[in-house]
Amino acid sequence: MELNNAPDLTAERLNEEATSSSLSEEQYKRKMERRKEVQEQRLADRNLEKGLIIVHTGNGKGKTTAALGMVMRSLGHGYRVAIVQFIKGAWEPAEKAVLSHWPDLLQFHAMGEGFTWETQDRQRDIQKAEQAWEKALTFIRNPEFKLILLDEINVALKLGYLKVENILAGLTEKPENSHVILTGRGAPQALIDKADLVTEMTLIKHPFREQGVKAQPGIEF
Amino acid sequence: MELNNAPDLTAERLNEEATSSSLSEEQYKRKMERRKEVQEQRLADRNLEKGLIIVHTGNGKGKTTAALGMVMRSLGHGYRVAIVQFIKGAWEPAEKAVLSHWPDLLQFHAMGEGFTWETQDRQRDIQKAEQAWEKALTFIRNPEFKLILLDEINVALKLGYLKVENILAGLTEKPENSHVILTGRGAPQALIDKADLVTEMTLIKHPFREQGVKAQPGIEF
Repeated sequence: MELNNAPDLTAERLNEEATSSSLSEEQYKRKMERRKEVQEQRLADRNLEKGLIIVHTGNGKGKTTAALGMVMRSLGHGYRVAIVQFIKGAWEPAEKAVLSHWPDLLQFHAMGEGFTWETQDRQRDIQKAEQAWEKALTFIRNPEFKLILLDEINVALKLGYLKVENILAGLTEKPENSHVILTGRGAPQALIDKADLVTEMTLIKHPFREQGVKAQPGIEF
Repeated sequence: MELNNAPDLTAERLNEEATSSSLSEEQYKRKMERRKEVQEQRLADRNLEKGLIIVHTGNGKGKTTAALGMVMRSLGHGYRVAIVQFIKGAWEPAEKAVLSHWPDLLQFHAMGEGFTWETQDRQRDIQKAEQAWEKALTFIRNPEFKLILLDEINVALKLGYLKVENILAGLTEKPENSHVILTGRGAPQALIDKADLVTEMTLIKHPFREQGVKAQPGIEF
């Protein structure tokens, strides 16, 4: 589908112009009126509902955290959600405490192992990742689930524990209206090509590296 | 504080090397043993607890969503959290439904106006933004709040509704151990310089633009 992007460009130009301090109140008002028209045009143009394949990648923070935010929104709408964690971190009691508020809506499945450098056994890691993917497939195929979060699956792909062809094939089994989020650094290009919404989280400054600050509750876990 | 970043570089090199399919199982195991040692070194080096100034900026998705994820984690730890919304969106019932699970821990304050192109009155917008900032300051100063989310405040800064000097001065009143998150595109450089943790969310692909897909419940609101 070809889409007219002119309203986007106009919206951005108007946003930029509105920040000029040399505008009179009346000029500002006219720009905002025009901006409102453009926004209405944008919303009219985009009327398609579609289940999305969403990728959060990059070396910055916020990949899993933003996915968690989408999980919360979906639960707020009363949708059923499944989370499969492919590379388990050490921290999760706070997240579990939060998610336990929706026992009927949320399914949570963790791979049940530590980071890869904890196990040091590649064959076992591969087996666990494959088991997690089989579990994920049962959620992906199930039309009762509106959102499926495959947390850190990109890392399992990068490590070669899972094959991207298999993941792409599995995603074709998704019902039309459900969303799948795949997080983790190093998302393979074939997955990015297939995805609808791809965001790269880029690290600009991080206190862990620059100031010797440790991972802290509420922020990192 | 000068920090030794050699372990970070070693960790990244080992991560990369571990993805090589030509490694024997034994070589893989040794790399992961070394990786584990490096990780222990990294954690030993970083032992500082510190309240953080966190900025989520960039043109991509996930700035508010990742902040919402941090809010959820903090609530999961039983911390008090305040949210001040500077540029109110049209959508929030689902988020409010989620947040209503923590009536004792969470304070929510919305500017009470629509997007700037809805009001078209700059003086009124400026006044509302200043009121929201005054409210935010009461939370920032209050040591009972562990996390304060100033949602979309960067947009108010970019539009000139608030002055960055005032925001930076206000942030110095934050107690040592509390965190403040400032979201929105166009974060001013002076704020980035002051922040501890800065992540830029970069749009790689977006279905709203590319496929005419509208904002959807559970994902965008």
